[in-house]
Amino acid sequence: MAVYTPVEQDDLLQFLAGYDLGEVIAFKGIAEGVENSNFFLETERGRFILTLYEKRVDPADLPFFIGLMDHLADAGLPCPTPIHDRSGQALGRLNERPAAIISFLQGMSPQRPRVVHCAELGRALAHFHLAGADFPIERPNSLSVDGWRWLLDATTARAGEVKAGLGEDLEAEFADLAAQWPYELPQGVIHADLFPDNVFFVGDALSGLIDFYFACNDAFAYDIAICLNAWCFERDNSLNITKARALLAAYESVRPLTPAERTALPLLARGACMRFLLTRLYDWLNHPEGAMVTPKDPLEYWQRLRFHRGIAGPGAYGLD
Amino acid sequence: MAVYTPVEQDDLLQFLAGYDLGEVIAFKGIAEGVENSNFFLETERGRFILTLYEKRVDPADLPFFIGLMDHLADAGLPCPTPIHDRSGQALGRLNERPAAIISFLQGMSPQRPRVVHCAELGRALAHFHLAGADFPIERPNSLSVDGWRWLLDATTARAGEVKAGLGEDLEAEFADLAAQWPYELPQGVIHADLFPDNVFFVGDALSGLIDFYFACNDAFAYDIAICLNAWCFERDNSLNITKARALLAAYESVRPLTPAERTALPLLARGACMRFLLTRLYDWLNHPEGAMVTPKDPLEYWQRLRFHRGIAGPGAYGLD
Repeated sequence: MAVYTPVEQDDLLQFLAGYDLGEVIAFKGIAEGVENSNFFLETERGRFILTLYEKRVDPADLPFFIGLMDHLADAGLPCPTPIHDRSGQALGRLNERPAAIISFLQGMSPQRPRVVHCAELGRALAHFHLAGADFPIERPNSLSVDGWRWLLDATTARAGEVKAGLGEDLEAEFADLAAQWPYELPQGVIHADLFPDNVFFVGDALSGLIDFYFACNDAFAYDIAICLNAWCFERDNSLNITKARALLAAYESVRPLTPAERTALPLLARGACMRFLLTRLYDWLNHPEGAMVTPKDPLEYWQRLRFHRGIAGPGAYGLD
Repeated sequence: MAVYTPVEQDDLLQFLAGYDLGEVIAFKGIAEGVENSNFFLETERGRFILTLYEKRVDPADLPFFIGLMDHLADAGLPCPTPIHDRSGQALGRLNERPAAIISFLQGMSPQRPRVVHCAELGRALAHFHLAGADFPIERPNSLSVDGWRWLLDATTARAGEVKAGLGEDLEAEFADLAAQWPYELPQGVIHADLFPDNVFFVGDALSGLIDFYFACNDAFAYDIAICLNAWCFERDNSLNITKARALLAAYESVRPLTPAERTALPLLARGACMRFLLTRLYDWLNHPEGAMVTPKDPLEYWQRLRFHRGIAGPGAYGLD
């Protein structure tokens, strides 16, 4: 929620000289994303977002992220279009950082998604999965089972500071997930972080998908599981089955799930809880004293994980 | 450089229901101002800034600030226009804070102002002073001589942590300024914080004056002195006399200075240095460990103050 790298006017103008965007009309740092520095940029040619990639993004991944946005926008998905400079490049350098200009998307994020938002999201997610199918670059998911092992090693010793016994509980859960994890489900490019923050709506209509900086290759159904966790639970961490049913039915209206995907959904949902629980726990234990960004509560995802562990099957999500 | 208070969609829509602005098209937190929470808001009716006033702004001052923007915009100054709700109010409440919507101004701030910017600024400042003349509300300058005394008491004991002997130097300077301070100069509403951050340009043309939250009643020439310090010094803290001359000549093309104002300028410029030096020193000594906002260097203003103390008279600024 902060601009990390200020951009001076002279540096901006020099950077923009390589693009065919005309005169600058407005330029403001915006509080979007916590990993990178983002700016609202208006020129004679329209409105854009300028992103400076900060150290948490591996420059080697940028061709995947930028290329994916290009690919999806070409396929008609409502996602940002990277702007290419006069030499055809969509990735430049500004303030000693990789930098890109992408199109500005209208809309705002629903902090409390309603059923209609969940349905819109489900449909868009399925279109995303289909559109990514022929994207040629691959990027493994560093935050799947192997990544959890690393995060467990980095957190379990102190996990008890958050809740007594949490470290042991997480190790047991991990052992269970790792033993059963379904590696043979239909795969492709997934967003992997499609929280409401990253989806825009104008009125009730979905107008944009943003922030592709966790996108990677993994099971489509795992992406659905992430969305179920992020969109369909109420603030008391109870599942709203109406929202889940709406999300899944809308998804299936575009891309029906295979029987194996349906069966795996509760396990994938536990894994999706594990992934966000562990990164939140890591941030919780390692955030600098006095920093202005408040880390998110890891235990929220522990409660959701326990819900998924307790259900009889995917019928609990409203699947027939 | 951060959004302090997030605004949820439902709360925003409820707040906007009182206004005649149509549907929301975009909404983003922006990194503008460090005292308040600011959001870029686009609706069917246009583009706006939504401001939530945080605790450093005294709610009792808001009718002055909002009324002043209304008054100046009416007079044709390029400053934000407060938007009035259906009941005629320009000040509402959102997230338990006073909140206002103002018009969005195009342009960007020059971090390294050139001569042409200084001239544009000088002309706009004079128009501002003339336009404020018939504004009916008054607000004393809490950061003039009496305020410095308070800030000295809060900082001199530890000023040596910044530079050996700084506390004693500041006390001596204060005694000198307080003894000579010119209280009889032409007065009116001054901006009091017209740094380049608060002035927008499109190309070389001034397109906006913003952030009136230090505006108050004081000597016009003191406002000029603040601008000389903020616009006409190079990064090595040397005065660029070409910029100073351009600023002053453009100001005088609209509102000529009186002989007393000219004579007082070096003393006022020392006072203007004292004011920013002391608030920066206070922030430097009191900022929370690990906070993401880096306090500005107080000593920059000590060097500029010494320059003003060393000159023979206002001719050093390019005045005839």
